[in-house]
Amino acid sequence: MALSPLVDVGPARRPSAAEQARTIMAGTNVASLASLTREGDPWASMVTFGLIGGVPVLCVSDLALHGRNLKGDQRGSLAVAVPVPEETDPSDSGRVTLAGTFEEPRDEEAAAARAAYTDAVEGAEVFTAFSDFTFWVMRIETVRWVGGFGRMASADPESYLAAEADPVAPRAAFAVSHLNEDHADALLLMARHLAGHTDATVAGCVRADRYGLDLELTTPRGPTNARVGFAQALDEPEGLRAATVELAKRARALREEHSRTLSGEHRTDDLSG
Amino acid sequence: MALSPLVDVGPARRPSAAEQARTIMAGTNVASLASLTREGDPWASMVTFGLIGGVPVLCVSDLALHGRNLKGDQRGSLAVAVPVPEETDPSDSGRVTLAGTFEEPRDEEAAAARAAYTDAVEGAEVFTAFSDFTFWVMRIETVRWVGGFGRMASADPESYLAAEADPVAPRAAFAVSHLNEDHADALLLMARHLAGHTDATVAGCVRADRYGLDLELTTPRGPTNARVGFAQALDEPEGLRAATVELAKRARALREEHSRTLSGEHRTDDLSG
Repeated sequence: MALSPLVDVGPARRPSAAEQARTIMAGTNVASLASLTREGDPWASMVTFGLIGGVPVLCVSDLALHGRNLKGDQRGSLAVAVPVPEETDPSDSGRVTLAGTFEEPRDEEAAAARAAYTDAVEGAEVFTAFSDFTFWVMRIETVRWVGGFGRMASADPESYLAAEADPVAPRAAFAVSHLNEDHADALLLMARHLAGHTDATVAGCVRADRYGLDLELTTPRGPTNARVGFAQALDEPEGLRAATVELAKRARALREEHSRTLSGEHRTDDLSG
Repeated sequence: MALSPLVDVGPARRPSAAEQARTIMAGTNVASLASLTREGDPWASMVTFGLIGGVPVLCVSDLALHGRNLKGDQRGSLAVAVPVPEETDPSDSGRVTLAGTFEEPRDEEAAAARAAYTDAVEGAEVFTAFSDFTFWVMRIETVRWVGGFGRMASADPESYLAAEADPVAPRAAFAVSHLNEDHADALLLMARHLAGHTDATVAGCVRADRYGLDLELTTPRGPTNARVGFAQALDEPEGLRAATVELAKRARALREEHSRTLSGEHRTDDLSG
């Protein structure tokens, strides 16, 4: 699915696995917990969570099986998936697994845990006040990100904790549709002149993040993915429009430059751009 | 949340925990798997599944961590949640946990497993053909259903395997909205005359299944839940309209009967119904 560009344009920045994982964790408050029963058997259950930075905070009843499990053995793992529309292939969507141990927070961390959890989970003020509910914060040992088919990587816990959730990616769906519907010509110019796939005949945008756009291309050599990077990393989704306009301008300028070098010869690029 | 009816009307049939679990499993093809790493630590991950009856079938890569986990230790657990709209409180929605062991199917079961999985998971013909993918069928030992706040029960594996998924509940959302928007008066009559909450002042429907309706009532004694049962269990969602019309008719007939016994006395029920 990834052909080499015909012209070397250097790599375009992508979110790291740590950033991808932080982004997915920040996008929902529902996770699946894997805990251990008294017999050491795995037990899967649904939990809601809050975040202190990237650190998950749970609040579960000691009467529920997963609560009893954590009281008995603090090892646990959380799987979190990007919420996607029903028609989306779940195997081709983002998810992350964190694994480590859970600990009851004390002192300042207990207050931070309560604040993070009640901030993330509606109505939590009510049940977190019950005496049978225990807060748990995760000491993360493993971070595994899967972005979809063929896109996956691990991150070390330090990188995960230091990374920022992407402010753009979770809110880019509308912009991506708009690019595909109204600016397919600009995407094709980007593919040809910024991503080095000079033979691309069709280009579509599959996702956007703070660093750039992921494209899917049709070429005479077959389909391929490509990446184009913004001039600067974005800090908010509102920057997406200006950043893609800049990409399109840059692509057009390179097309012109290329045309000029070819002037006097036959023109191969007849896009009206 | 559940006050006693003022008039004893006998219990209305509800789906069993086994039926609830079968219904939830039949409603999606995405689950969270809890497996065990080589160190015996729990590992949470996303999987897609198919069903042979109620028996989950997985197909996972032996190269993925959860695939390696199952090759090393076949104990596992699946958590499956009812897909709900984003604004719904995830803690108040249905989910089920199955726990047991996974086994590689042989002979006829291997063919059934492949058929069930490829039927449930789009594009599965492609990757199930790869040599590093293994089919797993679950030998269920534990079934735990949670319907939401205060609604939960376990089922034994035999009952789970013998139960049917509810043909009505997953497709009843529109009918439930319609009842609340256009037939609040009929719901109130049902609450008063069929559920025995003769003092109810407001009634709304929260869900429907093949056996009846779950109602939420306002009464001078406080809010309560109530249940009204259909004359006959439904075999398809299309039966919902006739069944609720029958409930409303029955409620009106009881109201008339009650009015007649009160005739000559002062009328307390002045609903135009």
